[in-house]
Amino acid sequence: MNHHRSKADGARVLADLNALRAIGIYKTGVHRPTFSEPHLRSLDWLVNQLPQADLAGEIDGIGNVLGISAKSGSKLLAGSHLESQNFAGWLDGPLGVVYALEAARVINPDPAVKGAVEVASWCDEEGHFGHFLGSRSFAGDVTEQEIDAACDRTDNRPMRQALLAAGLSERPRITAERGRHIGYVEAHIEQGQTLESSGLGIGVVTSIVGIWQYRIIFTGEQNHAGTTRMKDRRDAGLAAARLCVAIDDRFPAAAGPRTVWTTGRITLDPGAPSIIPGRAEILFQVRDDNAAIVERLEALLREIASDTAAATNCSVEVECIRTGRPAMMNEKFQRAIEEAASDFADGKSIRMPSGAGHDAQVLATIMPAGMLFVPSIGGISHHWSENTDDADIVRGAEVFVEACRRLLSN
Amino acid sequence: MNHHRSKADGARVLADLNALRAIGIYKTGVHRPTFSEPHLRSLDWLVNQLPQADLAGEIDGIGNVLGISAKSGSKLLAGSHLESQNFAGWLDGPLGVVYALEAARVINPDPAVKGAVEVASWCDEEGHFGHFLGSRSFAGDVTEQEIDAACDRTDNRPMRQALLAAGLSERPRITAERGRHIGYVEAHIEQGQTLESSGLGIGVVTSIVGIWQYRIIFTGEQNHAGTTRMKDRRDAGLAAARLCVAIDDRFPAAAGPRTVWTTGRITLDPGAPSIIPGRAEILFQVRDDNAAIVERLEALLREIASDTAAATNCSVEVECIRTGRPAMMNEKFQRAIEEAASDFADGKSIRMPSGAGHDAQVLATIMPAGMLFVPSIGGISHHWSENTDDADIVRGAEVFVEACRRLLSN
Repeated sequence: MNHHRSKADGARVLADLNALRAIGIYKTGVHRPTFSEPHLRSLDWLVNQLPQADLAGEIDGIGNVLGISAKSGSKLLAGSHLESQNFAGWLDGPLGVVYALEAARVINPDPAVKGAVEVASWCDEEGHFGHFLGSRSFAGDVTEQEIDAACDRTDNRPMRQALLAAGLSERPRITAERGRHIGYVEAHIEQGQTLESSGLGIGVVTSIVGIWQYRIIFTGEQNHAGTTRMKDRRDAGLAAARLCVAIDDRFPAAAGPRTVWTTGRITLDPGAPSIIPGRAEILFQVRDDNAAIVERLEALLREIASDTAAATNCSVEVECIRTGRPAMMNEKFQRAIEEAASDFADGKSIRMPSGAGHDAQVLATIMPAGMLFVPSIGGISHHWSENTDDADIVRGAEVFVEACRRLLSN
Repeated sequence: MNHHRSKADGARVLADLNALRAIGIYKTGVHRPTFSEPHLRSLDWLVNQLPQADLAGEIDGIGNVLGISAKSGSKLLAGSHLESQNFAGWLDGPLGVVYALEAARVINPDPAVKGAVEVASWCDEEGHFGHFLGSRSFAGDVTEQEIDAACDRTDNRPMRQALLAAGLSERPRITAERGRHIGYVEAHIEQGQTLESSGLGIGVVTSIVGIWQYRIIFTGEQNHAGTTRMKDRRDAGLAAARLCVAIDDRFPAAAGPRTVWTTGRITLDPGAPSIIPGRAEILFQVRDDNAAIVERLEALLREIASDTAAATNCSVEVECIRTGRPAMMNEKFQRAIEEAASDFADGKSIRMPSGAGHDAQVLATIMPAGMLFVPSIGGISHHWSENTDDADIVRGAEVFVEACRRLLSN
């Protein structure tokens, strides 16, 4: 019934994932921020695994690892990332890298397949220093000036300093060789509850939502918390709180069915208990795969911000600091994943958009791309308790390897 | 008409205040946090001025300076503080220290006055390491354990380390000598707009409000900002914002006429743009000179916090981390200041409570105490643009010196 067998080795995949978890372990997750010692160690680990898959590669000048095959025939690029958010989960990134490695280990030595899987680990998908710096560098979209300006958002360390300390500052950055790859495929945990709540094993990604990010700054008047009467205050912190509540009250009616929005950070200045905040900064984000909806929400955000400023006697600036176009996944890649799921996951798959950003959206700008999701327990992610059932991990690896084989055999 | 002349030297007072402003100057204010290099230099400056006022003293083991007189007769204690809030004003603290020094310089050498003014600079009134550590140490109310546990709220430096670096760790802490002083008097800028808006020159403080401080922690669920549907979220940051808005909406009806409340800090954890905050911490403060009103407001705060937690699917803890009893100023001291204002400020004085905390509230627990305010331009304080008209500074010095003379002559 199955002409092409996957032959993914589930035990080897689980062992690799656990070996990576041991590098920078934190509770049951990892703390492996970009260019930290554990992150660099995880990249070395990957470089050392490449020969087993008939690949050769090293870390490049921006922290990417690319394993190159000498085999003739088509090349399929596969990968994900190895750094983590701070004190976060063990699978976000490593799952896709280990699946890619497994596909290369199974397929590359197989003479029946006229082609090879090449494995990539893209640096800083988690955005400690910027956004998608690794995959965007590979796509030829990162200037030296952008690197000059990049700093770690946690401790402000300049990226140049991190590259120097990692011994990478003299290495070239590898960029995509035009026409080399038939496309890019990436596996990832879902990070949501769609698969789990429907009892499904595989998500076939149709599109990756765009992310729009805003910095909203209220300016009031810094003053003494004991001597300034309530009626005389211009409290920028109160303005920030009123904005968040107004967004929560008014966005649902204007949003699409899958729109999500998040206030991730509020900073009151100076942040002392006895001082009325004179300045408040909010980081706010909207995600959707429909740019028209986001445009409508941005207009509403600006209206709410102005109303709030007027009501609190503050002034406000709303700055759009990031605009992400939604990325469409290639139909042929979706079909290959779906067919592989039909053979190796009892057809328990569903087509779905990705609410999270992934390197695949960058690769999709230069070649066909596809993505596969496995379930996340409780939908939890970006937290050390993030997890996926071992059986789901193994099933996902089988489907991924099979999808790669089909893409190379077409 | 005036039996006792003040003889305060206004030019000398202004020169001293400007000399202190030069130590750690920031724009037109100062950045002189507790145990910073400029703060220690300002304490040395004061120690060096003491002999001009027939006083002797040095910095003690907690950073207090106390200038002791060898003159016979009554002793009146006067002072304030020399450290500042971060990047804050030049007069908050130094005004009271320089007025005290001026009173000592005028009165101590005067054989007509049977007594002396002793000058104090209390360490850390601004609360970088705790609250009122200097004056409370003098009052015998600070244990070694409290110092062991104290850390700088800006950079977390332990107080022990700061004392060691300042060369103070081996020095004894000076405590109040029972019965030595007839009382304590302190001058300060008002830090509000009562005097300015009424065209008055002197505030005679009747009481210092109590400060109640709360730490409110909401716990939700940290999760991915792209993949977690809005309806599945337990956003601790949104809970924090809803609390602040509910307080602003519901406190006015339950508060007293002079109650003030402030949210000085909101910290969302982990504070990243793509992560739904799983934890939010709020520092909230209430001030009033009527403890019954604050009790009522605390009950309301707890009710609002519970309602907010329920509405946002989070849990909440409300912890009272500081309880300040209001302090009453001594009637005789109020009268002395008022009479001095009658002679030297054309009677343009008003009795008023202090919305800000001051070392006088600590000294009031061990001796009679009084306070005098001078106007603040625009009511601005705890900000580098804090200022007072030179004429108001000079008038205040004259009234302060006269009030000290009257208190010693009674």
